[in-house]
Amino acid sequence: MSPRCFADRLLETVESKRSHVVVGFDPALESLPPELVASRPREDYHCSEEWQAALYRDFLRPLAEALVSEAVAVKIQVAYFEALGGPGYKLYEELVAFCRELGYLVIADVKRGDIGSTAEAYATAHLDRTGADAITVNPYFGTDGVEPFLKRARDCGKGVFVLVKTSNPSSAEIQDVVLQGGEPLYARVAALVRQWGAGTEGEYGYCSVGAVVGGTHPEQGAWLRTVLPGVPFLVPGYGTQGARAEDIARVFDQTGSGAVVNSARAILYAYRSRPECSWLDAAVAEAREMRAALWRAAGRA
Amino acid sequence: MSPRCFADRLLETVESKRSHVVVGFDPALESLPPELVASRPREDYHCSEEWQAALYRDFLRPLAEALVSEAVAVKIQVAYFEALGGPGYKLYEELVAFCRELGYLVIADVKRGDIGSTAEAYATAHLDRTGADAITVNPYFGTDGVEPFLKRARDCGKGVFVLVKTSNPSSAEIQDVVLQGGEPLYARVAALVRQWGAGTEGEYGYCSVGAVVGGTHPEQGAWLRTVLPGVPFLVPGYGTQGARAEDIARVFDQTGSGAVVNSARAILYAYRSRPECSWLDAAVAEAREMRAALWRAAGRA
Repeated sequence: MSPRCFADRLLETVESKRSHVVVGFDPALESLPPELVASRPREDYHCSEEWQAALYRDFLRPLAEALVSEAVAVKIQVAYFEALGGPGYKLYEELVAFCRELGYLVIADVKRGDIGSTAEAYATAHLDRTGADAITVNPYFGTDGVEPFLKRARDCGKGVFVLVKTSNPSSAEIQDVVLQGGEPLYARVAALVRQWGAGTEGEYGYCSVGAVVGGTHPEQGAWLRTVLPGVPFLVPGYGTQGARAEDIARVFDQTGSGAVVNSARAILYAYRSRPECSWLDAAVAEAREMRAALWRAAGRA
Repeated sequence: MSPRCFADRLLETVESKRSHVVVGFDPALESLPPELVASRPREDYHCSEEWQAALYRDFLRPLAEALVSEAVAVKIQVAYFEALGGPGYKLYEELVAFCRELGYLVIADVKRGDIGSTAEAYATAHLDRTGADAITVNPYFGTDGVEPFLKRARDCGKGVFVLVKTSNPSSAEIQDVVLQGGEPLYARVAALVRQWGAGTEGEYGYCSVGAVVGGTHPEQGAWLRTVLPGVPFLVPGYGTQGARAEDIARVFDQTGSGAVVNSARAILYAYRSRPECSWLDAAVAEAREMRAALWRAAGRA
């Protein structure tokens, strides 16, 4: 029996949890709640990277447990774990498994891109081994650089989110460059994403090959929604990066689905703006507000 | 005292070793010499990833020692190590240190690209922590996504190789897209690379921000050389991917320098075409031939 396709699992989880929220695990030592840091004396550890990985574990596991009713997926930003070397890498793998057991879809936010043989190794590393449900990839190499990921989408029920229009301030320098036909480069990438999704269609009309569309670019997001029917969007940039629910209303389809929205820092470090709560309650309250705001913006409430 | 800039170290190593060769560490279990695999019985290991990482170590450390007169740099393709999880990641870090001790420049071939805060974490992971001399990066996010790497080039003597025109067959799909002014996208990326190098100039007129220019595209490589004076090239695609020394002669500057050329599989698995030698001698012979061919192609012999 072939596994359920990612697109169907994603859309069903949005419905069952009544949420479009993805929580981003982007841990940073300097932003952790001070009482949490104080609870693990540093001198217990020979290696400060092990100490830091242990702190990240203390922080992220309770968060994952507490947010399970609010968020459909966890997006794990591997960079913050790689920055801790071996102990960080081990924690990354542990968290993928832990979050999947809790019922989240897990997106390995690795943004890899390379020639075919190397992309195959990355697909092994971040989809086959860890068991993550989906991965983010960079399109710069073209088809042969994404094919190993597409194969997992067609054959193994995995999801692939291709960078189309990213949320950062400099994204226009390359992504918005105007092509001979007058359209921006990201439109060309969008056309490739449609091609790459062939053979991954699920029962709700969506493919398992999606697009990363920054929530900080509302007009581009709305336009991409019109030219990419059936392509699920992963929308970063909510919260700390500046996107609000009303900005991204048009990334949803007519049924109020087809997109999930990531917030990392605004949820993880919500304790800073909610001094009345514990850090864990603050994160839950923030995610709940985001969930409600997105549900309204999608025309669902 | 600020550290020596990467460009100067690279060019001086080319002169002192009389070589443009970069050896790519892209290990693959199925390609290792059979006698090496037979020397480590699998049943000694509970975890096959540890067994595989131990084999890669048995293979790559002697290779690094044997090739030190032939190659100026080692390019470590992190994907093949990530594919082994924790044990692989640990070996990657060990090899960076080991190869640096042997006198190689070490290029962490990670091709990362992300928003600024995440790029900072990647720079920490792959330059600060491991001590690698240089890194490969993907330009799709624009300036803020590469700035953390550029900062290490300006302040810490590190090198940055930005993907401009990659060696793989599908590279044209995005990289060769024609812009409004008639030039291909990779020309626009090349112009950004020139900007990004500002403040990293060394004493030989080269910057520490370089370009990845696939050896499989000789015409584009020659053109890029003319528009990017003072930008060092990292040229993949030699050997197994099909580029020959005569194809890439024009990536060198008028002095026969300014570019280094990577070969991975053709060196690592040279034993397959040289049954008369040991696997180690075969690799050395292959690297030596490549070195001589490039030295001639660069007009140096």
